[in-house]
Amino acid sequence: MINVGIVGGTGYTGVELLRLLAKHPKVRIKAITSRSEAGMHVAELFTNLRGHIDLKFSDPADAKLNKCDIVFFATPNGIAMQQAESLLKAGVKVIDLAADFRIRDVAEWEKWYGMQHACPDLVAEAVYGLPEINREQVKKACLIANPGCYPTAVQLGFLPLIEAGVIDMNHLIADVKSGVSGAGRKAEVHTLHAEASDNFKAYGVPGHRHLPEIKQGLSNVAKRPVGLTFVPHLVPMIRGIHATLYARLTSQIDLQALYEKRYLNEAFVDVLPAGKHPETRSVRGSNICRIAVHQPQNSDTVVILSVTDNLVKGAAGQAIQNMNIMFGLSETLGIDQVPLLP
Amino acid sequence: MINVGIVGGTGYTGVELLRLLAKHPKVRIKAITSRSEAGMHVAELFTNLRGHIDLKFSDPADAKLNKCDIVFFATPNGIAMQQAESLLKAGVKVIDLAADFRIRDVAEWEKWYGMQHACPDLVAEAVYGLPEINREQVKKACLIANPGCYPTAVQLGFLPLIEAGVIDMNHLIADVKSGVSGAGRKAEVHTLHAEASDNFKAYGVPGHRHLPEIKQGLSNVAKRPVGLTFVPHLVPMIRGIHATLYARLTSQIDLQALYEKRYLNEAFVDVLPAGKHPETRSVRGSNICRIAVHQPQNSDTVVILSVTDNLVKGAAGQAIQNMNIMFGLSETLGIDQVPLLP
Amino acid sequence: MINVGIVGGTGYTGVELLRLLAKHPKVRIKAITSRSEAGMHVAELFTNLRGHIDLKFSDPADAKLNKCDIVFFATPNGIAMQQAESLLKAGVKVIDLAADFRIRDVAEWEKWYGMQHACPDLVAEAVYGLPEINREQVKKACLIANPGCYPTAVQLGFLPLIEAGVIDMNHLIADVKSGVSGAGRKAEVHTLHAEASDNFKAYGVPGHRHLPEIKQGLSNVAKRPVGLTFVPHLVPMIRGIHATLYARLTSQIDLQALYEKRYLNEAFVDVLPAGKHPETRSVRGSNICRIAVHQPQNSDTVVILSVTDNLVKGAAGQAIQNMNIMFGLSETLGIDQVPLLP
Amino acid sequence: MINVGIVGGTGYTGVELLRLLAKHPKVRIKAITSRSEAGMHVAELFTNLRGHIDLKFSDPADAKLNKCDIVFFATPNGIAMQQAESLLKAGVKVIDLAADFRIRDVAEWEKWYGMQHACPDLVAEAVYGLPEINREQVKKACLIANPGCYPTAVQLGFLPLIEAGVIDMNHLIADVKSGVSGAGRKAEVHTLHAEASDNFKAYGVPGHRHLPEIKQGLSNVAKRPVGLTFVPHLVPMIRGIHATLYARLTSQIDLQALYEKRYLNEAFVDVLPAGKHPETRSVRGSNICRIAVHQPQNSDTVVILSVTDNLVKGAAGQAIQNMNIMFGLSETLGIDQVPLLP
Repeated sequence: MINVGIVGGTGYTGVELLRLLAKHPKVRIKAITSRSEAGMHVAELFTNLRGHIDLKFSDPADAKLNKCDIVFFATPNGIAMQQAESLLKAGVKVIDLAADFRIRDVAEWEKWYGMQHACPDLVAEAVYGLPEINREQVKKACLIANPGCYPTAVQLGFLPLIEAGVIDMNHLIADVKSGVSGAGRKAEVHTLHAEASDNFKAYGVPGHRHLPEIKQGLSNVAKRPVGLTFVPHLVPMIRGIHATLYARLTSQIDLQALYEKRYLNEAFVDVLPAGKHPETRSVRGSNICRIAVHQPQNSDTVVILSVTDNLVKGAAGQAIQNMNIMFGLSETLGIDQVPLLP
Repeated sequence: MINVGIVGGTGYTGVELLRLLAKHPKVRIKAITSRSEAGMHVAELFTNLRGHIDLKFSDPADAKLNKCDIVFFATPNGIAMQQAESLLKAGVKVIDLAADFRIRDVAEWEKWYGMQHACPDLVAEAVYGLPEINREQVKKACLIANPGCYPTAVQLGFLPLIEAGVIDMNHLIADVKSGVSGAGRKAEVHTLHAEASDNFKAYGVPGHRHLPEIKQGLSNVAKRPVGLTFVPHLVPMIRGIHATLYARLTSQIDLQALYEKRYLNEAFVDVLPAGKHPETRSVRGSNICRIAVHQPQNSDTVVILSVTDNLVKGAAGQAIQNMNIMFGLSETLGIDQVPLLP
Repeated sequence: MINVGIVGGTGYTGVELLRLLAKHPKVRIKAITSRSEAGMHVAELFTNLRGHIDLKFSDPADAKLNKCDIVFFATPNGIAMQQAESLLKAGVKVIDLAADFRIRDVAEWEKWYGMQHACPDLVAEAVYGLPEINREQVKKACLIANPGCYPTAVQLGFLPLIEAGVIDMNHLIADVKSGVSGAGRKAEVHTLHAEASDNFKAYGVPGHRHLPEIKQGLSNVAKRPVGLTFVPHLVPMIRGIHATLYARLTSQIDLQALYEKRYLNEAFVDVLPAGKHPETRSVRGSNICRIAVHQPQNSDTVVILSVTDNLVKGAAGQAIQNMNIMFGLSETLGIDQVPLLP
Repeated sequence: MINVGIVGGTGYTGVELLRLLAKHPKVRIKAITSRSEAGMHVAELFTNLRGHIDLKFSDPADAKLNKCDIVFFATPNGIAMQQAESLLKAGVKVIDLAADFRIRDVAEWEKWYGMQHACPDLVAEAVYGLPEINREQVKKACLIANPGCYPTAVQLGFLPLIEAGVIDMNHLIADVKSGVSGAGRKAEVHTLHAEASDNFKAYGVPGHRHLPEIKQGLSNVAKRPVGLTFVPHLVPMIRGIHATLYARLTSQIDLQALYEKRYLNEAFVDVLPAGKHPETRSVRGSNICRIAVHQPQNSDTVVILSVTDNLVKGAAGQAIQNMNIMFGLSETLGIDQVPLLP
């Protein structure tokens, strides 16, 4: 059994880790920490866990995380970078679900995240945990930078086109839509039900923190810089990301075959039959990314539709997928739930 | 392995049976029938099932249901009563998720359902599949009338009070609220998103088909007729039932202890700590009924709050719970999912 | 023209006052105050007002409210009681949309609202602004306690029965459901879209601040104390209140005729034809209360369904209705919008 | 007073015409027809109209539409083209809210709409009723083709860029999102609340009927053919369209000034300050189109955000705007409602 610790379990990625790990056959949850809620039963905060998790939030000071085999950070940005080093030295593997280790260029990270990085050395060591690209590195990793929700859906959507070298890399467009849980379980006016429901808007068009992460990922694959316009939107739904991706084709190719072949052996990427449109509910609660590829009106513009559950493949599920790989388990263990529909 | 057949798998109870049975460790789904969709892949209609169910809808004529160990009817009212008899004769157990066998008084049934009953004889033989009341009969049953969604939440809520004999049985009130999936996957104007969202209304106040079912169930426990006012409402959400129940106390009793004791050994009924309020999302996708009991302002009116997922404990999950009991399996096998929250 | 001031215009009752007053033919909005947003254009905070309101939030100190003819307090509880006296002395009429002057029994008020009352003397002077009951007093009032949203829907629903003296007054039940805007525009976790949508729950069952207000109102009409069980619920919608009211009939009466007669001359109460069910969207954005009366299965339990828009008839619209009456205008002036459906 | 007739008043554009015309100071609604609902009170079908519209649906045969000054067709595609000619001959002006007269190229229309056109001659005569482009022609028109909802939001968004000639016209992208009311008040499975809420998807990517309409409109302005990729999406909200538009800049220009200048005198187009993001609820129930223009990261890709209420500026409100222009009234008469927020 793998002894697991979770730091910062009061947000949506925290409860989602608990939902999934509670049924994982090879995991024992040893501790979940929260400074603010220490002493409270986890199931009192998250009533869905009643009868499934019999654990209290513990104070970080008491949690003995360095006795764990692996620790997940489900914390705000800027926390994992302060604690990862000592855990790694104690031989504990670390997966950060926040952004502390996602961007290689530390100066770039500091610009977008507005703080000084506490351990730049570790950034180079961290593996970007998108298994469909970095599976081999993940196997050997001690420190995983778990990808952001938007970057997961966008990169999996563009990946086959970039690997095939058939699109103009200077003018990619990612028009992406997210459910409100992507904003986290923070008390804020703009994500109140009375503000966000029956409404739709773009936000962060001048610049969003996931932009450099996506560009870095796509550039790594392309082995050259890419140009990307990234426009996120807020959808009045709880879970789900829908990326609508646009690129200019530079040579003809059988797009459907390209995608099907690329993802043939990927358990968590599902390429839909030609002509179909994925919907976010078709992956609700699951670790699947479903993708469709279109070339409307036979123009030279390709349109990719890519959907995920932002809390699963976009966060907690992908973290567990990485854990499974790191510990040599079946990659789908504990995360092969059937999506909940309707 | 139990060989399972499903008749009429194109509605919400059908897809929910498939979602749950796909992961049930003792079940093999042999056939799912649909006259209208025969030949279509199940996963084409319900995209959440892609990768989990590799089965086509088959024409009822070709389905060889009498080779199954058990057949679920996820059909409109009036279908199971025409086909159950021949299956039973072939030694196949039958669970009807519709209403054909729920009401003992056939004339009463015919009045509320507006059709003639095709096999009144079987009505007497059928066991009303609310395990928390009828577990022993379910064990031996060949034909189960799976309870309605409202009746499940209401009966489980009132049950301890009635068994204890501490309330006025002539004036029960059940003010019940349901998500829209309770209306089924039928094309109708009043359940369109543009009609039903951002809206709330009561319906069927003069009379709803679940009224006689609830009254029958409560009267059986009370061993006398009961008086009940039942008001259903439509909530702009997909899944979930919330029953708010009112009764006049005729003697003082420790209500919290009463409920906790009654449901101590029930895996699927969760009595919340005193003072709490259950919410429907705390059972989303799960077979749990969560109950809270209140006596506001110390008046003689007791208020019970009872929530379920109408498609699980109110339909498909309860049907599988009955199947587990009928086949001597652990009652929770395959239906102990953690609810999906948020 | 009536010169109007608004204190505390950054919440939902504030923006709703602005939406309605912007088009009121006899009103000039002189000032809207907000300590936190002073200097900001109103239309920057509430983008629906762009092009309709050309006004900045002003600091309360600079607002010259005592030059207004009337001031609306759209503030949290406890503010109006500190400022009303000086305005009244300056000859300014005051309408408080919060609860400061609603409860006659000051000790009772202090118990429920958890603070000391700053001007108990004014409480006796204030008129409870439910025009359908107190129209004559409103005409002469200088200080209006504008009713709460739940109390408006519940009192209008019960009123004809109580006036007629045909129900058991000791055991009234009000099962009431509210859209999320009723909780105000405050950053709180439990009203986030990701928490409150696709969900339903009761809250405050042990005791809610609107309970004493409703009991006081019904007792005044009944001229005796009433017994009431009041259970509020949160509906995943923005606007709307649906009260489902239950009472035991003590004598037979033509209920439909009773209601139609009582509200025949009321512009803002609409009694539906027999057998109908009102829905909240049928009053969205309007000052109407729609009511239906049922006696299901001919039992002795009467069921009243009463719907309002909590921000209009339950707050800003009713406040303007009171203003119209106080200034001798047509009662419907500026508040006869057609509800927005769908 | 203008005597108005409405053909086909049982859909969402019908009820929206009624909501707006009921308060229009220069309109008298003479007849509203519906074959299926003839004899029913309009307010029985659309309960928001109770107390505002005292009219029954009449059979088309009895409606005496040729006595009206103007007739609106709020019918499915293919109806107006059969009835417009005789009305026009009787001197009645006609506004078709469906698509019968929108596409100049009749063969193209027949291809996309799958039927033969009944009166190709009238197509040439019809004026495309987008007043911000065609105001002068609308003034003199007898027959108006009222634009589609998507085309209105997209054309108003692209218009200044095209007129200025500063973008690559061969590769426009319109990623557009619509509320569910855009699908109409038809009983269909895919727009049920249980299917469409808490969900997001693209549809019609291979080809949507609004594509040729948008291309025709943009080409007319550009005076050359344009290349457009148009991807519509379904948002779980009732009303609202959000168009996110992408174009490649071919020369530098002050984009903010361009837009502000172009729409300076347009009552129904609101250009937001630089850096802002419009949201659909900021126009809910109103005839406004709000637009923001961005050039993220100073790349050569311009991003335009354009929002409307699909039932108002995208249908009924724009039709009344056209009527006002045709009859020499103030363009905003009867359609200057403040949007409903929250």
